[in-house]
Amino acid sequence: MKRRMKATIAYDGTNFAGYQVQPQQRTVQEEIEKVLTTMHKSDEIVHVVASGRTDARVHATGQVLHFDTTLSIPLDRYAHALNVQLPRDIRVLEIEEVADDFHARYSVSGKRYRYIWSCEKIQNPFRRFYATPTNGVKPDVTLMKEAAQYILGTHDFSCFCAANTGVKDKVRTVHAINFEWHDEELHMTIEGNGFLYNMVRIIAGTLWEVGIDKRDVNTLSATIASMDRSKAGKTAPAQGLYLEKVHYPQ
Amino acid sequence: MKRRMKATIAYDGTNFAGYQVQPQQRTVQEEIEKVLTTMHKSDEIVHVVASGRTDARVHATGQVLHFDTTLSIPLDRYAHALNVQLPRDIRVLEIEEVADDFHARYSVSGKRYRYIWSCEKIQNPFRRFYATPTNGVKPDVTLMKEAAQYILGTHDFSCFCAANTGVKDKVRTVHAINFEWHDEELHMTIEGNGFLYNMVRIIAGTLWEVGIDKRDVNTLSATIASMDRSKAGKTAPAQGLYLEKVHYPQ
Repeated sequence: MKRRMKATIAYDGTNFAGYQVQPQQRTVQEEIEKVLTTMHKSDEIVHVVASGRTDARVHATGQVLHFDTTLSIPLDRYAHALNVQLPRDIRVLEIEEVADDFHARYSVSGKRYRYIWSCEKIQNPFRRFYATPTNGVKPDVTLMKEAAQYILGTHDFSCFCAANTGVKDKVRTVHAINFEWHDEELHMTIEGNGFLYNMVRIIAGTLWEVGIDKRDVNTLSATIASMDRSKAGKTAPAQGLYLEKVHYPQ
Repeated sequence: MKRRMKATIAYDGTNFAGYQVQPQQRTVQEEIEKVLTTMHKSDEIVHVVASGRTDARVHATGQVLHFDTTLSIPLDRYAHALNVQLPRDIRVLEIEEVADDFHARYSVSGKRYRYIWSCEKIQNPFRRFYATPTNGVKPDVTLMKEAAQYILGTHDFSCFCAANTGVKDKVRTVHAINFEWHDEELHMTIEGNGFLYNMVRIIAGTLWEVGIDKRDVNTLSATIASMDRSKAGKTAPAQGLYLEKVHYPQ
């Protein structure tokens, strides 16, 4: 009996070349497929499909995958069976059985990302891979919130998309952008129906420039309208980014 | 002009073979001495003296060192001057000028350590080097607190000292042991006038056994009186331990 499984996983992106399999590189996908293939005693790779890829050093606290299994492991022990074989920088948080037509990528209705800047003057050595250091610079979050209002809603987000992507339709809807201080770390969460390649990191970099007074709040509308990547800010570093939640229709 | 400097430092112990210099190994002391020696353009190593060593994978959020400097770097820029050259897993938090007779090791009047267990069923991958996983086991902290009462005060702590240490006088005073839950992580802090080799980790391991009902609270007195290491619990893993604070007389 073949069952389709939905797995929610977390990973520390520090020691990965990214989510997606690449020759000669350590990737999240390959580590999981190796374990599944061994468990299934399969001659062919047991493939997993993720909600989307994440880049090198980007973290996930709620990435979602699907795969098909022929194993009769009970559902409540499946996550544990994977975790005992997976390296400790990947953990399966939850496994559910889903309908055959569930697709981790095509069924996505939305995603939430988190971006973290650590604004201590002297960076906490324990956070060096888990936040972007600002060398003590603290932005004006009121300005960042104001700028974020221009991003909310449905737009062609070409200006926030890394060049050289194959995607043609660059219209997406951003539902929410929130900022919150956690001691000396600034967290931004962003929620939308989908995100283009590097979109969250370019938005983070652009809003950061507004927050440190290097970019005027009032230019945001024109930047988006330009559909020109070069008009937006720098791509913020990978290590501050977390894929936090993937939504699917109920 | 020679000045004696007191440095308070933090380090992520994960990628160190410990604090103290060892041939062919990456150590905290060596990284700091390399930077100081370069800064002083010295032919001889500029030595640093710490409050005590820490083992491989043990962390510090408030280790203290002293060294002598001939450099005229202003005090308020000295920490930064070191940090720009140090690897990112070591940070100098504070530099003070102290009297010539200040000694980071001999002047110590007390220390505080922290020990962290992560009791989530599925370990957070971001905490794998920073807490000791218990695979979902949650101890009875009331029992641990009760057992801790027997440790408080002045005792010969031979039972909590790793064998093969050169130290003869094993009498120490423990001032406080506290427990606190932070979500699903249990933190123990312990404060005393000094600690024997592995003492905090053996106390953590012993109290843990009490907490999971593998050791009777009422045996603690006899264990201490025995002065026999084999009567106490297992040495808890290094990765959960943090040197948090070193006290000196005002």
